[in-house]
Amino acid sequence: MKNKRGVICFKNPPSILGYAAVAGDMEANGPLKGKFDKVFQGDMDGEKSFEKAESKMQLFAAKQALKKAGLSPDEIDIAFAGDLLNQCIGTNYGLRELNIPFAGIYGACSTMAESILIGSVFVSSGYVSKSIAVTSSHFCASERQFRFPLEYGGQRPLTAQWTATAAGAVVLGKQNEGKVNVKAACVGEIIDYQIKDMNNMGAAMAPAAVNTITKFFKSTKTQAEDYDMILTGDLGQVGSAILSQIMDKEGYPLKGKHSDCGLLLFDRQRQDVHSGGSGCGCSAAVLCADVLKRLETGKLKRVLFIATGALMSPTANQQGESIPGVAHLIFLEGNIGHGNCD
Amino acid sequence: MKNKRGVICFKNPPSILGYAAVAGDMEANGPLKGKFDKVFQGDMDGEKSFEKAESKMQLFAAKQALKKAGLSPDEIDIAFAGDLLNQCIGTNYGLRELNIPFAGIYGACSTMAESILIGSVFVSSGYVSKSIAVTSSHFCASERQFRFPLEYGGQRPLTAQWTATAAGAVVLGKQNEGKVNVKAACVGEIIDYQIKDMNNMGAAMAPAAVNTITKFFKSTKTQAEDYDMILTGDLGQVGSAILSQIMDKEGYPLKGKHSDCGLLLFDRQRQDVHSGGSGCGCSAAVLCADVLKRLETGKLKRVLFIATGALMSPTANQQGESIPGVAHLIFLEGNIGHGNCD
Repeated sequence: MKNKRGVICFKNPPSILGYAAVAGDMEANGPLKGKFDKVFQGDMDGEKSFEKAESKMQLFAAKQALKKAGLSPDEIDIAFAGDLLNQCIGTNYGLRELNIPFAGIYGACSTMAESILIGSVFVSSGYVSKSIAVTSSHFCASERQFRFPLEYGGQRPLTAQWTATAAGAVVLGKQNEGKVNVKAACVGEIIDYQIKDMNNMGAAMAPAAVNTITKFFKSTKTQAEDYDMILTGDLGQVGSAILSQIMDKEGYPLKGKHSDCGLLLFDRQRQDVHSGGSGCGCSAAVLCADVLKRLETGKLKRVLFIATGALMSPTANQQGESIPGVAHLIFLEGNIGHGNCD
Repeated sequence: MKNKRGVICFKNPPSILGYAAVAGDMEANGPLKGKFDKVFQGDMDGEKSFEKAESKMQLFAAKQALKKAGLSPDEIDIAFAGDLLNQCIGTNYGLRELNIPFAGIYGACSTMAESILIGSVFVSSGYVSKSIAVTSSHFCASERQFRFPLEYGGQRPLTAQWTATAAGAVVLGKQNEGKVNVKAACVGEIIDYQIKDMNNMGAAMAPAAVNTITKFFKSTKTQAEDYDMILTGDLGQVGSAILSQIMDKEGYPLKGKHSDCGLLLFDRQRQDVHSGGSGCGCSAAVLCADVLKRLETGKLKRVLFIATGALMSPTANQQGESIPGVAHLIFLEGNIGHGNCD
């Protein structure tokens, strides 16, 4: 029974009514070119700061997802959203004008899965009809907050990931109102393997992904073959390799089903992102620009989306603390497909 | 119908199985002296940093609430928790060792109400059996993060509030398993009256409290007389006066039923806290040290607990942004009392 903790199989799975993805120009020139709802120009897109630009991206993503769902903000009962900035200001200022009842989330780069997960429980419980999940990240805002001012021009090691300038939003409604259902979910635990290198987030987060995926597999008596795609958020090249190795050892090999949002968003050969993309906006944008479309059209049927977050801060790191990871999972299924999670 | 958005009346109200409050020595020498589960000594209680001391407080509060509920950490399905520190490190490092599936929350000083609210929906939905809500704040950690290093000795204006060094935890389970039920809740909107003074949080948050309380009153067709206590979190003297004035104007006078956690935790005549206490830990500790006990014993029957949060960051403030507020409400009722919220 202990394995079941945190695993939720929805009796009446909420469905996705609309979604939207925004990207910066570098992200929009990667492998997902042409798939974003809007491309933001330069680092600020006309705003006066990186942070204000991030808020603008998040607001646009939310409005666009609502538009595509054919809904106005006042038809949404509750928003779950957050971002990487201190006190989640990307979200607080971005969503302020929408006047949607708002519950702030902090899951670092796991925010998109966490927001969809919590929103799904609220909708499935019947206490609300519709919710929206929104998140974002911004390369320049993250660099100066977590690492160095950009002007310093510090060299990045090859294990480092590139925080994506991107945002995504998903509108949730009742079962079968949309073409993709949230069938199940798994809330992750805080897992800490004592990695202390702020430039190796993939290694810090991979064990959390292992923990969540294996817990979900055990609880639902499924394995990699039962899904079309096992999509982690932002482990990058280094973390993805670690994930595969440990999953093999644990007896749950991923057998070619694994993809990582950090590797899908950028072309590592052509774009200077080292281990791959990261940031709340990375997994959110990959999900909303590409994966949900493929689920809607039946090109994918059953997808596990596991967004991973590194729960440290620069202060904690300076005090010698390690980097705890967390990974939240949602199981998405296109209406065209069939299947149970029980 | 628009007023109903964000208002949740639980069909099977979750109940509170255990709770605990921790305070620093200044807080423990205020009006609630003798009511805390533990008093932390000095600014660090033997730890090497303020932040590590905050994590320790949060861990103690969680463990103590579990102990009082007669539960072990592995009997809890999910934890909702957060704090004021950048990236919520008080929580991430504090709760790490418990291995409870964990969903991070950021609601600034509204965190305790938000965590209980979300946990209540999860328990009431039947997808989980038990959840825990935890939060904390630390005066020294907050001062240096949000304002000035303590060594600077900056003078505080009279509108400023004193971030409490305190933590609180609440364990939630099924209806009537405990002596206090969470009967209803209201998720607040982001409300911004363009206050820009980081030393006047009460004024920034009061309009959000007005919005949430009036929405709840309208939706449930109740008013101040229907409750024994309307307890806001951390508006302090300045914010409480503003709240009363606007509630009068709105036609929902609070008629002597209003108390504020920031005014209950400290003795403003004797302790140098200016407008009153604040911080996630302030409302959490007042709730868990005093109010829940009075609900259990029947001294209070129906309490609205409205924790308020200021959603800015120093970066946003430096960029000229205003301070948006949010207020989340939970309606607590002792088993000895009766009543509906519909």
